[in-house]
Amino acid sequence: MEHKIKVGILGATGSVGQKFIELLKDHPWFEIAELGASERSAGKKYIDATNWIMKNQLQPEVANIVVKECTPDYESKLIFSGLDSSVAEQIETDFANAGYFVISNSRNHRFDKDVPLMIPEVNADHLKLIDSQPYKGGIVTNPNCSTIGMILALKPLHDAFKIKKINVVTMQALSGGGYPGVPSLDIIDNVIPYIGGEEEKMETEPRKILGKLGDGEIIFNNDIKISAQCNRVAVIDGHLETVQVEFENKPTKEEIIEAWENFKGVPQELNLPFAPVKPVHYFSQNNLPQPKLQRDIENGMAASVGRLREDPLFHYKFIVLSHNTVRGAAGGTILNAELLKAQGYLDKIA
Amino acid sequence: MEHKIKVGILGATGSVGQKFIELLKDHPWFEIAELGASERSAGKKYIDATNWIMKNQLQPEVANIVVKECTPDYESKLIFSGLDSSVAEQIETDFANAGYFVISNSRNHRFDKDVPLMIPEVNADHLKLIDSQPYKGGIVTNPNCSTIGMILALKPLHDAFKIKKINVVTMQALSGGGYPGVPSLDIIDNVIPYIGGEEEKMETEPRKILGKLGDGEIIFNNDIKISAQCNRVAVIDGHLETVQVEFENKPTKEEIIEAWENFKGVPQELNLPFAPVKPVHYFSQNNLPQPKLQRDIENGMAASVGRLREDPLFHYKFIVLSHNTVRGAAGGTILNAELLKAQGYLDKIA
Amino acid sequence: MEHKIKVGILGATGSVGQKFIELLKDHPWFEIAELGASERSAGKKYIDATNWIMKNQLQPEVANIVVKECTPDYESKLIFSGLDSSVAEQIETDFANAGYFVISNSRNHRFDKDVPLMIPEVNADHLKLIDSQPYKGGIVTNPNCSTIGMILALKPLHDAFKIKKINVVTMQALSGGGYPGVPSLDIIDNVIPYIGGEEEKMETEPRKILGKLGDGEIIFNNDIKISAQCNRVAVIDGHLETVQVEFENKPTKEEIIEAWENFKGVPQELNLPFAPVKPVHYFSQNNLPQPKLQRDIENGMAASVGRLREDPLFHYKFIVLSHNTVRGAAGGTILNAELLKAQGYLDKIA
Amino acid sequence: MEHKIKVGILGATGSVGQKFIELLKDHPWFEIAELGASERSAGKKYIDATNWIMKNQLQPEVANIVVKECTPDYESKLIFSGLDSSVAEQIETDFANAGYFVISNSRNHRFDKDVPLMIPEVNADHLKLIDSQPYKGGIVTNPNCSTIGMILALKPLHDAFKIKKINVVTMQALSGGGYPGVPSLDIIDNVIPYIGGEEEKMETEPRKILGKLGDGEIIFNNDIKISAQCNRVAVIDGHLETVQVEFENKPTKEEIIEAWENFKGVPQELNLPFAPVKPVHYFSQNNLPQPKLQRDIENGMAASVGRLREDPLFHYKFIVLSHNTVRGAAGGTILNAELLKAQGYLDKIA
Repeated sequence: MEHKIKVGILGATGSVGQKFIELLKDHPWFEIAELGASERSAGKKYIDATNWIMKNQLQPEVANIVVKECTPDYESKLIFSGLDSSVAEQIETDFANAGYFVISNSRNHRFDKDVPLMIPEVNADHLKLIDSQPYKGGIVTNPNCSTIGMILALKPLHDAFKIKKINVVTMQALSGGGYPGVPSLDIIDNVIPYIGGEEEKMETEPRKILGKLGDGEIIFNNDIKISAQCNRVAVIDGHLETVQVEFENKPTKEEIIEAWENFKGVPQELNLPFAPVKPVHYFSQNNLPQPKLQRDIENGMAASVGRLREDPLFHYKFIVLSHNTVRGAAGGTILNAELLKAQGYLDKIA
Repeated sequence: MEHKIKVGILGATGSVGQKFIELLKDHPWFEIAELGASERSAGKKYIDATNWIMKNQLQPEVANIVVKECTPDYESKLIFSGLDSSVAEQIETDFANAGYFVISNSRNHRFDKDVPLMIPEVNADHLKLIDSQPYKGGIVTNPNCSTIGMILALKPLHDAFKIKKINVVTMQALSGGGYPGVPSLDIIDNVIPYIGGEEEKMETEPRKILGKLGDGEIIFNNDIKISAQCNRVAVIDGHLETVQVEFENKPTKEEIIEAWENFKGVPQELNLPFAPVKPVHYFSQNNLPQPKLQRDIENGMAASVGRLREDPLFHYKFIVLSHNTVRGAAGGTILNAELLKAQGYLDKIA
Repeated sequence: MEHKIKVGILGATGSVGQKFIELLKDHPWFEIAELGASERSAGKKYIDATNWIMKNQLQPEVANIVVKECTPDYESKLIFSGLDSSVAEQIETDFANAGYFVISNSRNHRFDKDVPLMIPEVNADHLKLIDSQPYKGGIVTNPNCSTIGMILALKPLHDAFKIKKINVVTMQALSGGGYPGVPSLDIIDNVIPYIGGEEEKMETEPRKILGKLGDGEIIFNNDIKISAQCNRVAVIDGHLETVQVEFENKPTKEEIIEAWENFKGVPQELNLPFAPVKPVHYFSQNNLPQPKLQRDIENGMAASVGRLREDPLFHYKFIVLSHNTVRGAAGGTILNAELLKAQGYLDKIA
Repeated sequence: MEHKIKVGILGATGSVGQKFIELLKDHPWFEIAELGASERSAGKKYIDATNWIMKNQLQPEVANIVVKECTPDYESKLIFSGLDSSVAEQIETDFANAGYFVISNSRNHRFDKDVPLMIPEVNADHLKLIDSQPYKGGIVTNPNCSTIGMILALKPLHDAFKIKKINVVTMQALSGGGYPGVPSLDIIDNVIPYIGGEEEKMETEPRKILGKLGDGEIIFNNDIKISAQCNRVAVIDGHLETVQVEFENKPTKEEIIEAWENFKGVPQELNLPFAPVKPVHYFSQNNLPQPKLQRDIENGMAASVGRLREDPLFHYKFIVLSHNTVRGAAGGTILNAELLKAQGYLDKIA
């Protein structure tokens, strides 16, 4: 690729924004050209406007970019949004109206009728919804971080055996709460058994993601019953979830493992830069996966599963782990953008 | 009470043994007279044989007791056992045969036909099993720490509405793994999604505890279906559990709360020293109970419940918290001993 | 005491304010009558205005108190201030001018010429400064939490052997940073080697505390050279400090231990309710004191010392631990108030 | 390099051994050929003999190596030793006598008269000592993990301004205690103010490292006075140390920073594979370096320094951070081996 596509990042000083910057370093297709944040940060060099908390040192060419306000006067036509939900709705709409493609990690537009809620391995065909959007540009959204890992693990099983019931209990990482986020006094030597709005997201988003593309909208999958319970634990990165599942056709344990091992989606076929080689990694050891040991598998873009066993109340139970700020947020959003690019949606802006 | 009953503690240098010593300070009925541990510790003063890790300073009168081996030649006729399961079976049997009453926290005798598996508020009548024991003395056991909190919360609901299904996912504290127990490198910034044998205990022990006293044995309650998933989290003390439940007769939310609030058992009627005033405390705030905030309620002897809400897959879901080394181990064992004493079972030895 | 003295607490919803409330439960001399906080909280019941994070459950008689603004129209003439330093200066002055006795934990008035900076065991005579104050009431302050533990340990050594140099490195608890305070993402698996303003406080406050009462002011002790380095570690409560010290007259190790063991101050002589029996506890084991194990000694009001050994660069090195929110904040402030009461300073308001 | 040098790793199942394996993946000069461990592990495939706790997944070609006992019958002539000090002394001697070059991370031979105690940037010339060794092969050792970071930071200052006094207080990571190492119950919500033998190592090793090469021995530098205090904190990786230093000739702050920025050693001149580009990185922000943010700089091979300021008791104080299991253990050992190779010491075995 001779010319990389210039991208702007909205909410660039927040934790998702920082992760976008960290992950986009040396991206083969995209280059960071503009950074947007609140009025308070606008006009400052990025390095002076942000409290950098990523492990990789901030790349110098980004450090010196002067932060802009989040108004649709950017040169970059591709926009990654890590905006807080309190402001994302209007700003993202404004950019889309003005001709920008907004790939968002915020929840605001997830349930808009004509906005796809994308996991590229799961519902790549939903991208077509963009054609129904009234915007000069477009909006594509990412599901919630706790939904993504679970659905990556369940999609191949749903395809093969049809899921009827999902019961999930999460142990979610602190980085999911943003920065400064969860106070240390609240979580050291503790668990917080509540995350506002999280259970509702996990009980509703899968219906859209696993729904069918209809005429300018998604026909929700309302056949699956879902119950979610969400907890915050003292883990930096990596959401671990216990999942119980009941199928239309109960498979054997071996059939489930085979479905996971063979699972490939459109990103793998297209060999997208951020696509994991294997979206799901199965571990047979009885104490894996663990957040600290497996969250970085495939650069944090794959889900890890393990402890598969028959269940007295459902058909099977297992655990799934995924990196909440990579696969579950910034990395997933970048993969969405790559899919858009590979499928020609960005031709008009690139 | 003029004369306190002398007690011996087996496994006195371990974490459960230390907790027995900490909790028995100033007990109105029992006084520590003898301490038993392995050959390696025997002959030493207790303070030199142990690595004291309790928060309360070791009482001086115990510090100087010379540790004995675990052979049935104790003056004390009442024995608290915090022995490791690798040695508990034979030693406890030997003491019981020799005329001692062994109140055990170990798992070895829990499923002996004639040994009661006791939660005093739940199945005080099971104590009668002792009369069927072949021992000159007797053996009484405590359930697993993760079972106790859950059953305390479920017992009043079972009595009122009859439970058919229980689904539980635990987030268990480190002190449940003994000392030295879980390595710090394994759990800081991590969750371990596996505790050996724990799920099996949670799926079987309730059947005996909620069973009926038959002729020299317990008739297990096999009508209840149970599924358990157990995880270790970075919490010092306090097991937090998400519970889903289905009833024979679905109650209202208010009826459940009322059942919890009014729950009393034999220990409350008898006003036993270690009995909590209320075995179950209900919290209406949406982020409570939490291990750090509620584990010490009623000196760690009560269970806390919260987040009660209807469930799409079962009737209700809620969370329960209990202190695993107090109510779930040493404290529960002491309450068992108090019940024995109050009901006359210790008359022959006191 | 027939009638308890009514007290008002300023900054009642903050972490120091909550600790005041927790500690004042059942106090023999003082009773909580009024609670002050910001305009935002005023008019609400305390339980609705606060996010209670203390381990002990909020006492019901306090829960229902309606919060007031921090203006000097209180019925209670004794005021405990846990105000943030951004607002404390003026409010405390206003209350003092209006006839209230303000016992403050804030740093604002610590270096006022006529305001005593009190550790009751160390400089009880400094209270006389109050007579020089221009206020109708008065102001008394508490040193910084990291200063108090160190000075408790050093005072008996200074009296006996005269200190020339102090070198201190701290590992300070999270509760010292207030609530919400330190973000969990900043401190789990980490140390923060900087606490704004802390090193300056530790290098200057001892000069006033160990100074002499002059004519309406304290003559600072500027003969002692002090260097401080302050770090934040992942501990909930309890500041641990490594201290190196050089004396005018180098004592033996035994003489130092004896000085600690025999140390008593005015609060011990007066048998004040919050006075520890022994202000300093010496531990001979080579790995004690530790925050988790010793912070609660004497209800958190005593300092613990250990690891005393000769030093190649100074005379001796040792470690000291004290509970930063009890002895180092709310508890220390209450002890100040008790000293005021016992020495008659509150007669005119009680 | 056509043929890589085959290496054997002793103590391969321990935490240092695992780190050797993780770091040697794709090493340009060395390839893992043999793995040695205790009798209990010998004969098993490595993957079955070890509890792999590294973040990077175990490379498959190593997973299937059959573990050997630690007897000197290896094909590989270059041996990395991560043996426990309880067995290292004799085994390392046996290998050296039998013609192997042993690059050791254990402490046993560190003070042997003819064994160099190496930090390649600091005392590369000490390697000549090998010529005086009686072994057919040779032994080279690594200093203690807490010494290495400190000396990396101090070496350029010593060269330029001559150090007279060093005062250091450490906050050391858990991985320095091996695996299973520090129990979680001991360190969560706690600091352990004692690490057996650590202070003695920090007070003695610098004398040899900064000593001069004499005739078949090192002439220790006994002019520098050193005091060390060592603490264990709840950090996974990365030792943070507060350092105070007094010089023969007091430099300016700018001169110190310049000395750090310009510091290069033999490994940088030789461009060794594991050599950091800059051995010391200076940070001007007042809260850096921090373990979580800077430990991985230059793949964990560089030390980070910051908070440089004048000190009331010494000339300057600052903090230094280094990765204890990379630069401070396995990585440092590999760099030692690279230096040996580059300087021809391995010619006879390669």
